[in-house]
Amino acid sequence: MQNIKKITDKIAGLDYKLMDLTQKGLDNLTKPQGSLGRLEELAKLIVGITKKGNPIFKDKVVFTLAADHGVTEEGVSAYPKEVTAQMVYNFLRGGAGINVLAKHIGARVVVADVGVAADLEPNPKLIIRKINYGTKNIAVGPAMTRLEATKSIETGIEIFEDEFKNGIDIIGTGDMGIGNTTASSAITAVFTGCPVEDVTGKGTGIDDRGLTNKIEIIKTALKINNPDPNDPIDVLSKVGGFEIGGITGIILAAAAKRIPVVIDGFISGAAALTAYHIEPKVKDYLIASHCSVEKGHRIILSHIGLRPILDLDLRLGEGTGAALGINIVEAAIKILTQMATFKSAGVSKRTKE
Amino acid sequence: MQNIKKITDKIAGLDYKLMDLTQKGLDNLTKPQGSLGRLEELAKLIVGITKKGNPIFKDKVVFTLAADHGVTEEGVSAYPKEVTAQMVYNFLRGGAGINVLAKHIGARVVVADVGVAADLEPNPKLIIRKINYGTKNIAVGPAMTRLEATKSIETGIEIFEDEFKNGIDIIGTGDMGIGNTTASSAITAVFTGCPVEDVTGKGTGIDDRGLTNKIEIIKTALKINNPDPNDPIDVLSKVGGFEIGGITGIILAAAAKRIPVVIDGFISGAAALTAYHIEPKVKDYLIASHCSVEKGHRIILSHIGLRPILDLDLRLGEGTGAALGINIVEAAIKILTQMATFKSAGVSKRTKE
Repeated sequence: MQNIKKITDKIAGLDYKLMDLTQKGLDNLTKPQGSLGRLEELAKLIVGITKKGNPIFKDKVVFTLAADHGVTEEGVSAYPKEVTAQMVYNFLRGGAGINVLAKHIGARVVVADVGVAADLEPNPKLIIRKINYGTKNIAVGPAMTRLEATKSIETGIEIFEDEFKNGIDIIGTGDMGIGNTTASSAITAVFTGCPVEDVTGKGTGIDDRGLTNKIEIIKTALKINNPDPNDPIDVLSKVGGFEIGGITGIILAAAAKRIPVVIDGFISGAAALTAYHIEPKVKDYLIASHCSVEKGHRIILSHIGLRPILDLDLRLGEGTGAALGINIVEAAIKILTQMATFKSAGVSKRTKE
Repeated sequence: MQNIKKITDKIAGLDYKLMDLTQKGLDNLTKPQGSLGRLEELAKLIVGITKKGNPIFKDKVVFTLAADHGVTEEGVSAYPKEVTAQMVYNFLRGGAGINVLAKHIGARVVVADVGVAADLEPNPKLIIRKINYGTKNIAVGPAMTRLEATKSIETGIEIFEDEFKNGIDIIGTGDMGIGNTTASSAITAVFTGCPVEDVTGKGTGIDDRGLTNKIEIIKTALKINNPDPNDPIDVLSKVGGFEIGGITGIILAAAAKRIPVVIDGFISGAAALTAYHIEPKVKDYLIASHCSVEKGHRIILSHIGLRPILDLDLRLGEGTGAALGINIVEAAIKILTQMATFKSAGVSKRTKE
């Protein structure tokens, strides 16, 4: 916990003074004031986060963390758990959705195994920082020990800090883990106090009967483990996942370094929710790329107070929505830094005030 | 009208057979079926439009058409009408919002003067196809003659077809014209039958009193001119604008050539609405990039049956939202053409059906 505390202590507020200056700059650009709406808000936010008046996104990084979930024993997913490892290899070969979208926006993908239930073949592109071989089945006991929960967050912090040495201007978060919507629904129910039914969806595509079973499993997990909403580490250890803990750490570490964080869908949302309950100041660093079809995601976003950018009915994860979100944030920054002013362009200002 | 008829006759339906094949292809990619939501729908739509199983977006083009509006005499805008011409020069120098965003997505901007109320300096980057020096004041009579309305659409068709020779894979539509939200609100009220109050917003930023005046002016314009909703050319001539007619022509011409059209905000929306009332089949070719703060835009989108991609509170026009929308559509195409299949990646398929 000491290492996590060291990081959260470093998370400071936005630079509102520089944001005010940026607003004046935006108002001098050749467009009606405020007419670029949330692009202007995003540009101002990035300035406030980075403390840079003219930010440039040279290094865009999507972190995709993989881990397995013991609760798959209960038949909560439409896919066998072997798919987690198989998809990691797919990430490394560049064939997954996140690879395609990261390439599209000029970002690099950092893939880490923080708890896949198999020994993966070594690969220079793969970070292996396994906490354990998947979590335990939350329907019969805690997902992990408290020590493992802490370690998963610390591992995320370390993964971020190692990559930070290679240059990072903005990050996206992503996940891979068969069974992880079950863990994320449980986390969301605990932190938001919403009924399990309201935060549980069909994940990769189970049917109605599967959904009923999934809801019952989550209810059982919450009853057996009784996670304490006032103790985020307890929540993570009782019903969480290693990739969720890892993403939580990445989010906290990025905020501590004043790096904007574009979150992806439901699993990244559950990690953001955990990070927010560890340190609410992290909220200022979060940008919601989209709202997942997984219905718990909307509840998470509204609980933290985030408004998504894209409306695309995504539910893949991996960081796919985050990649597209980063691209829009980058567009916002270019508006701020590349547009002409009324004066430089010789355009008349408004006549009516 | 003969030339317009020739174009609308060429607008055919989507290639549903190829779209079905594409769906099968999408279902074989390494992701849960349908998990990329509207990205998959967009990819399928582009295939259906272009009749190409593996479309590539080499040439992305945003058409930004400029014209003036006589109704500015009534004080409906916060900006003087000189700004229309000044902004055209800004487009040509590359300092406007649309230049920045088009560059961001790798698109070229085609700027055309179809009715600016001033003789613009010749510039190799500027297409001058002026129908007239701005429209007449719709609060006292028709905006233009019926002949001019037809000519504005035909001019849009010709602008598209000239540029098509340089290569076009997808287009975005954009506008510049002080006073053109007034014309667009009038058009929207006529075609949708909604009360003027429901389709009229603050445009570039007038105050509440200005809005009341704008609504009154539009009501007067509709009363005096009595446009016939069953005759789109009549609507355009009575309360439209030259850039709106021009964009209408561009949309029809693109659909006739099976080129996808990403529409921007309220003014492009009014043009799309006009095109849709000329030939409803054009709907299949339209993609809504975002929903403008101008409240009439949401009504247009719902009238045609389009769902926006981005939620950014934009109200600039120029094609800015369309540019960002094109980028998302391009991402959708890359998902279709660049992702690995379950077979090629050695990933297990679902266990539950």
